Amino acid sequence: MKEEIISIIKANTQKGKEYFNDLRNKEEEAHNNVILEVNEILEQVKKKGDTSLIKYTNRFDSCNVTKENMLVTQSETEDAYRLVEDEFIEALKTASENIMFFHQKQKRNSWITTREDGIMLGQQIRPLERVGIYVPGGRAAYPSSVLMNTIPAKVAGVEEIIMVTPPMKDGTINPNILVAADIAGVDKIYKVGGAQAVGALAFGTESINKVDKIVGPGNVFVAMAKKSVYGYVDIDMIAGPSEILIIADEGAKASYLAADLMSQAEHDLMASSILITTSKDLAKEVKKELEKQIEHLERKDIIRKSLKDHGVIMLVESIEQALDISNKIAPEHLEVCIRDPFMVLGDIKNAGSIFLGDFSPEPLGDYMAGPNHVLPTSGTARFFSPLSVDDFIKKSSFTHYSERALSKIGDKIVKLAQGEGLTAHANSIMVRNKA
Amino acid sequence: MKEEIISIIKANTQKGKEYFNDLRNKEEEAHNNVILEVNEILEQVKKKGDTSLIKYTNRFDSCNVTKENMLVTQSETEDAYRLVEDEFIEALKTASENIMFFHQKQKRNSWITTREDGIMLGQQIRPLERVGIYVPGGRAAYPSSVLMNTIPAKVAGVEEIIMVTPPMKDGTINPNILVAADIAGVDKIYKVGGAQAVGALAFGTESINKVDKIVGPGNVFVAMAKKSVYGYVDIDMIAGPSEILIIADEGAKASYLAADLMSQAEHDLMASSILITTSKDLAKEVKKELEKQIEHLERKDIIRKSLKDHGVIMLVESIEQALDISNKIAPEHLEVCIRDPFMVLGDIKNAGSIFLGDFSPEPLGDYMAGPNHVLPTSGTARFFSPLSVDDFIKKSSFTHYSERALSKIGDKIVKLAQGEGLTAHANSIMVRNKA
Repeated sequence: MKEEIISIIKANTQKGKEYFNDLRNKEEEAHNNVILEVNEILEQVKKKGDTSLIKYTNRFDSCNVTKENMLVTQSETEDAYRLVEDEFIEALKTASENIMFFHQKQKRNSWITTREDGIMLGQQIRPLERVGIYVPGGRAAYPSSVLMNTIPAKVAGVEEIIMVTPPMKDGTINPNILVAADIAGVDKIYKVGGAQAVGALAFGTESINKVDKIVGPGNVFVAMAKKSVYGYVDIDMIAGPSEILIIADEGAKASYLAADLMSQAEHDLMASSILITTSKDLAKEVKKELEKQIEHLERKDIIRKSLKDHGVIMLVESIEQALDISNKIAPEHLEVCIRDPFMVLGDIKNAGSIFLGDFSPEPLGDYMAGPNHVLPTSGTARFFSPLSVDDFIKKSSFTHYSERALSKIGDKIVKLAQGEGLTAHANSIMVRNKA
Repeated sequence: MKEEIISIIKANTQKGKEYFNDLRNKEEEAHNNVILEVNEILEQVKKKGDTSLIKYTNRFDSCNVTKENMLVTQSETEDAYRLVEDEFIEALKTASENIMFFHQKQKRNSWITTREDGIMLGQQIRPLERVGIYVPGGRAAYPSSVLMNTIPAKVAGVEEIIMVTPPMKDGTINPNILVAADIAGVDKIYKVGGAQAVGALAFGTESINKVDKIVGPGNVFVAMAKKSVYGYVDIDMIAGPSEILIIADEGAKASYLAADLMSQAEHDLMASSILITTSKDLAKEVKKELEKQIEHLERKDIIRKSLKDHGVIMLVESIEQALDISNKIAPEHLEVCIRDPFMVLGDIKNAGSIFLGDFSPEPLGDYMAGPNHVLPTSGTARFFSPLSVDDFIKKSSFTHYSERALSKIGDKIVKLAQGEGLTAHANSIMVRNKA
């Protein structure tokens, strides 16, 4: 008997409840030996700079990087343009424009508010000065991620954007990545990767300037290194496995839903693809469509395993119940394929990126629509947000009081300071309000 | 010979450079045994809930909390109001109003933007649902911090704010704290503290609901526990020692500056108080004022040691040089006591909270002006910001494309997906754009 491509279960059953419990319990083990190794690498890079950075890069990536050739040259970028198809370059440029369009809407102004007696209060917003972007090498090298991580920083006004990425054995970098970096406006690219590259960005070396923030995906070594240097620099969130949740009613098109579930499932074996629907007929049709479409897909083995282990079609009584479950899961990607999808936007509490209607599939957002594809995974949409211009700015408050304004409020400040036992705080007011 | 209360050094000397190197190297040691202990406590609370939470609280705080009495009752709050001076309550209320006024200006709207062919893109902003606020017990219990941590969450629209704080041995909580919590609008207060309270907020117990974010200061156990649960929940930044940097020209008033340096120095032995001035005369006068004023202050021993170990008066050639040094230090608090202080606001790149002019001393900001006193310490103002309403919201992107809009752009999406080897992504577009 043939194995089912995906299971269909009812939400209101023991099995339904178990699915959701299991979903959020697939935590990664704490890799204690990885932590120790990463901390040793960071320590060495902090102490010995370029020497250690280059030593580890050559050891782990079997390449031959030197202090002289680790910075990508203008001519390497020009070569890359010759190696990449024109249509691909055009597509990257269109994507870049759309991402720029959306992120420019996120820009915020410094502001000031005035009150009586010369009181002025406000918030000054400034870009971070220097940002580091980690880009994985090899198969996981996604030019779209280069755009998504770089453009918000660019829009924020970051002065210098430094990219690090491990080279291939022959010392070159995937030309798609170089072209994407050039289009996005990366300032410098160093051919180094792994925990050592994170260390170089966090602490600085002779060649690489210390940055204020490190963003971008990476393997477990990179993720651990980022967590470890958090505080020396800021980091983006630590990404977990990718997820899609689709809410669909009986009017949704099975072939579209099946395709979207698989677009998520192809990412990796840990990816979760969830369809929640009020229609049993639709559920069955989607299952058929999955079987039909999967045969043409390159990564069908990954898709099959991922759907089997983490995918599900969940039957619910109502769209309200579907929304309730979705809010509890807090999915990274949420597709709403129901009549009048905008009508439920207000009911969606927790989701990274929301795709409304039949013609807004997740891959549209992954590449082209404009909103960022760097999103909170594993239920963290409860409290984390998509990568945005906000991630590349910092705020300072400012306060101006006049003598008169301070004299009016001084006694109350003194009262509070004394109540907290901080008499030097009280004194600072009293020396000014002697009268 | 009497020891100097603070040293005066020139910025452009070896000694000047060394001061700044040392300032940023007073890192805390990684407390490995603390980490292990904290992780064990968190694990136990995760597994055994209330039982472990209560066991550890009673062990570490020598109190007798039970499942029945750990939630503060309405009558305990009423009792607290009777124990606190009316003037103190009034001062808290005024502070609360001012903090509310400033933070309301930080509120942001969800937005939408439309493009041709029915494209709609936007960003939905929602408050976090539930937030936990840690408030230290004993001497470090500051009602002003209760206001500063709670009010931004309240303004953001957080539904439930849960405070945890270790009780005194007799099982009560400092009445100033209870009154501040009531004024700020805390929903529930539990008499538990330490790493175990952080664990309860992060994982939930039978009595305490799991939260989305944990904020508030604490000792090294609390700080480590927060860092450890980061990812399960969001946290605010890990605070380091407090700092003030004052930039002053010859017109500044020595008595004010001395008072302000000491208001910082009284916090703890690790606090840094830095005056940077163009005037040698002012430097000498400030030194005299320090000696004069310190005698009346309760915490003079702490102040003296803190000024001696970490304080400095730095002489510079120009205000530009002062600003340059300040930007490198990225101070938590920056006072600008020069003629026309607003003229240099645009030159201040890195600072948590900026105080402009002679009558805007730091304690005004600590208690009363409105901007938050939870600020980035230890140079992290390069990339972190004051606590704000932004810390209590999350964003979701949303995307709507019509059939026509998707058909126009579909080929480019397919091109990018194929270029990344993700054929199931391409398939999701192709099933829709069959024509």
